[in-house]
Order: sequence, then C-alpha cells, then structure tokens
Amino acid sequence: MAAWTEHRLIEKIRKACVNRADGLLTSIGDDCCEVTAPGSFLISMDSLVEGVHFDSSFHPPHLLGRKSIAVNLSDIAAMGGRPRFVLLSLCLPEDLEWHWISSWLDGVFEILTEHRCVLIGGDTVKAGELVVTVTVLGEPPDSGAIYRNNAAEGDTVWVSGNLGSAGGGLRILSDCASTIADSSAHYASLVKAHLDPVPLVALGQRLARSGLVTAMQDISDGLATDLAHICKASGVSATITADLLPYLPELANLSKSLHLDLDKLILCSGEDYQLVFTVKGGCEDLFFEQFSETVSAPVKIGMIGSGAGVFLKKGGQSVEISFQGYEH
Amino acid sequence: MAAWTEHRLIEKIRKACVNRADGLLTSIGDDCCEVTAPGSFLISMDSLVEGVHFDSSFHPPHLLGRKSIAVNLSDIAAMGGRPRFVLLSLCLPEDLEWHWISSWLDGVFEILTEHRCVLIGGDTVKAGELVVTVTVLGEPPDSGAIYRNNAAEGDTVWVSGNLGSAGGGLRILSDCASTIADSSAHYASLVKAHLDPVPLVALGQRLARSGLVTAMQDISDGLATDLAHICKASGVSATITADLLPYLPELANLSKSLHLDLDKLILCSGEDYQLVFTVKGGCEDLFFEQFSETVSAPVKIGMIGSGAGVFLKKGGQSVEISFQGYEH
Repeated sequence: MAAWTEHRLIEKIRKACVNRADGLLTSIGDDCCEVTAPGSFLISMDSLVEGVHFDSSFHPPHLLGRKSIAVNLSDIAAMGGRPRFVLLSLCLPEDLEWHWISSWLDGVFEILTEHRCVLIGGDTVKAGELVVTVTVLGEPPDSGAIYRNNAAEGDTVWVSGNLGSAGGGLRILSDCASTIADSSAHYASLVKAHLDPVPLVALGQRLARSGLVTAMQDISDGLATDLAHICKASGVSATITADLLPYLPELANLSKSLHLDLDKLILCSGEDYQLVFTVKGGCEDLFFEQFSETVSAPVKIGMIGSGAGVFLKKGGQSVEISFQGYEH
Repeated sequence: MAAWTEHRLIEKIRKACVNRADGLLTSIGDDCCEVTAPGSFLISMDSLVEGVHFDSSFHPPHLLGRKSIAVNLSDIAAMGGRPRFVLLSLCLPEDLEWHWISSWLDGVFEILTEHRCVLIGGDTVKAGELVVTVTVLGEPPDSGAIYRNNAAEGDTVWVSGNLGSAGGGLRILSDCASTIADSSAHYASLVKAHLDPVPLVALGQRLARSGLVTAMQDISDGLATDLAHICKASGVSATITADLLPYLPELANLSKSLHLDLDKLILCSGEDYQLVFTVKGGCEDLFFEQFSETVSAPVKIGMIGSGAGVFLKKGGQSVEISFQGYEH
C-alpha cells in the first residue's frame, strides 16, 4: 500500500473544495482565507488524537472523517447555530496509507456537503502520530445563540434522545467484541452511535427558534458532566429522575450480557452528541406541543432548582452525580 | 519536577484570559465562542509539531510560546490585516513538566498582549507528542486585504528586511553549535531570528494602507518558494538580483566558518517571517519616499515579468529557483 504524499493530499482537497459560498471572499491558496458574516460568528476548535479519541483499528476511515467534523458541528448545534465554514489541520505520520487518508477525506467532504458547510483553509504537516484539529465557524440564529449560563430555577431539563448509545458501542468495538456472539448486527444502533454520530444541527436551530430554551449544550462528556456545566455556569442545581432517562433497549441487553452498570453507561459515557437543554419554567406544555411531532421527540428528565450540583433521583433517594464521567 | 494537570492548565488560561474586547460576545466557557467583525475576518490555522517545527532541547518554552503565536500573526500581517482573536489547541504528552507548559503559556499571553490580540477558545488534550495548533482571526485593512494573485508585469519586487537569518540561527542551535567558539554571543541576531521571530504586523498594515502594494506574502518557506507562490497565483514571473538581497553580515561569517552555501541560506531557508511583496509598476519612487524613513526600510530586489517562474540573476547569468527550499 502506498503512503500519502503532501502533493496528492492537497490536490484532492483542492478538487473537492467548494470555492463559492455566501460570505466566502477567499478560500484555500493564500496566507489567510477571508469570510464575512451578516452578524457574528460562533467558533469552536477541537483536536482528535489517535489512541485517545479514536482507535483506527476498528474505526473505518470514512466514518472517522465524518465524525471528525460531526463533533465540531455539534458544538455549533449546541448554540442553536448554523455551521458555515471549516478549517482543518492534519498532522499525519509519514507511513500513513494514502487509501486511509483519502477515504477519511471522502467522509469529511460528505458530511460537509450534507450540512452545506465549506472547507476554507488549514494546514497539513508530518507528525509522529495522527492528530486532526478542526475549527468550525457558524452563524447564530436571528434570535441569538443559546448559552450555558441562562438556566433558572423552575426550568425543566430535557434531552434530545437516547443516552449512552455511543458508550455502549465503544465497549462492543473495543474491549469485548469477542465475548458477544454476532455483536455487530444485534447492537448495530449502539455501534453506529459511536462510529458515526449525528450532529443535531437542524434540531438545535429549531430549539433556538422556539424561544423557550434557556440553556443548552451537547453531550460529549456524558450527561452527568455536561449538565453540571450548565448548572455551574448558570448558578443553579438540577435534579434528574432515573426512570425518565431515555436509552435504547439494546443498551440494557448489553449491560446484562457484560455485567455493566447501566446507570453509569447512561449518565457517564461520552460522545453521544445528544443535546441537553433547559426549558423556561411554566412553558413545558407549550414546548412539548411544538416538538411532540418530531421524529424523535425530546424527553423531559428533570428540573432546575436553587443551589448547586446535579442530583439523580432513584428509588426515593437522591445522590449527587456532578462531573462524574468521561474525561479525555 | 511536577507534570502538568488539565485543572492547573485551565485555571492558568482562565486567569490570563481577557474577557472583554471589541466584538467579543462570548469567550472561553461555552460550546463555542462568539465574535463579531465590522467587515470580514481573515483566518489562518497552523500546527507546530515537536521534532518537526521546533526542538524543545534548545528552544526555551517562553520563546516557543511567543513563536507559536508569531507565525500565525505573520499570516495576518501578510494580508495587511490586524490580528484580533486566537483559538489554541494543545496536544500535550502526559509527562510534560508543568514548569515548561506554564512558561510556554506566559510567552503566548505576552505576545498576544503586545498585539492586543485575545485568546477566546480552543481545546486541551493528552497526546503522545507535543502538537500546538493555532487559529487566528484578524480584520483586513479598510482598503481591503492584499492577496497573492494580483502581481502584474512591470511591478517591482521587495522584501521587508534581512533574509536567511532564522535559517542561520537554526544551524547554530541545532547541528553545529559546538564547532563555533562563542557562537551564541557572536551570532545573537541569527539565533534570535530563529527563536523569537517578529511578526511584521504594523508594517503589513502600513504597506496595505500605502495603496501601492499589489501582492504580498510572508516568507515562511524561503524566498525562492514564497515568491514562487505569488508568481504562480498571479500568472507572472519574477527575476531577482543576487546582489540586491539583504542579509546580516553575521550570516556571511557563518557561511564562511561552516562552508555553507550563502545563496542557499538566503534564498531557501524558512521561518524568516519577513514580508515579500510587489509594488505597482511606475510607483517605486513614490513607494520608497513613503518608507525610506522607517527603522528598517524595505529593499527592492527585482522585477515582475511575463511568463512563469522565479529567476535569480547573478554574474550575468539567470537561473530558475522556483519552489527551491524549505518544506515541512
């Protein structure tokens, strides 16, 4: 198998790049790119490191390309924004196969096209290990971005969908595949949640437009940690009810098969990229009416209170779970 | 020596961060930061990899912090812009000493303050090797950014100052320090050019405001390569005169001492971060009048012609030197 070359890589990127987009004044090929926004830009930057954030022994390059962008689009989604432009810095080992990086790039351009988002710049360098850094720029909704620090006592807490799926998928793919017969077919939804997470860009925008969402963030480090970020930033506490937390039936099966703690999978595993958000106190019926007909309706899981911390109510008991979870 | 911890690192960054700046709506602490620009944004993103772009065995962390930002500010300078905001992604080995990264950050904040530029976001992750990725946003001059693709036949070619200094400094620091007596004192200017390059932000803005500069770029990969970028983008050729190329007398001494090819040091060594630019045909006297009184006046080194390629005129001969030089 042939290794990559900078020339071949840059040629492929140039060919795949869209050079025309609203607000794009200069794309790849100068010291800087130049873009203009009608209002402000939301910006996020994340690095993915081989062996820390992904394992290329089971992560197909095409899906990893999609995921490298997805996790950044999710940051824009969590503010209610619309992703517009991406810059990409690739640190690549010299012996990396051309086939691998070419397929990775196909995934990158595929998801960018799906979200009408454009690659406008970046860098390519040789390195000892594979590191991908993405900077994404998005436009906030007309009504303004949704921050983390605006949750208030009396608000209700919601999640956009099933929790723990990506964490379950990772367990199957990494350390226990051999112990589960026919694991990949039976647990396809969990495996997909890890390999090819969907950034909830359209939902994030709809939630922002509703005018009823007070604070929001994506679940990248696990609900226990990410809801704690909202609480800390807003100066409030949250109490969530274990029985209300949504998860796929396959996750319950997996936890039984492998004797894993189901609560921990649901609350503490990262990379779900669901949205956790708060709805203005007294508005939950109005909110539910607006969203009950979406394919996957948001689920109310708890309440915002005074004080600090995130608490889990289960079987009449309440335990603090703030910041318990996935760190990388 | 104690290793770094994420908690300590983030505390230090939070304390050093300026949270108020024109156009800064949201800084570190949410899924995204949010900024607004009166017009457009110039954006550049670069990664520096230990062992490829720097050698921490001789590069003091404080100066390396400065340089990590400087090389990105230089991209904004090369468009005539004013740097405003920076995002920083740090991939750090687990055993990296706290003292090292703390001192590196001091350098980062020092140069940001000098340029009234603000850190607004980024990422910190554990990795096998040290990789620093910087995204910088700047504002173009009111008269518009200076691109690479606007040089025309009859324009003159200029550089902002001495060439090859950083390349000479790197030779002294890396592979030949022991062969030169008292090298660091005698060659202090060369060593400084490598360790602590100055991004020519104020000069870039002045050049853009002059209205006489047609194309510009910074010299990161060596004059032979970077001038070739301007020629290729503009569809022109350039002929430069060897006798006109400015360099420090110490560089000539070094080339004698070490039997190095002086032309190659001047034309092909990277990381000088001088500016190479073209001045509108017929306007060179007007241009020189405006800039002759600056501390270090730009130097005319050649002419733009038709055709393609970069040529060096030396002793009655003309040889093509396009894209010869430093690649990393």
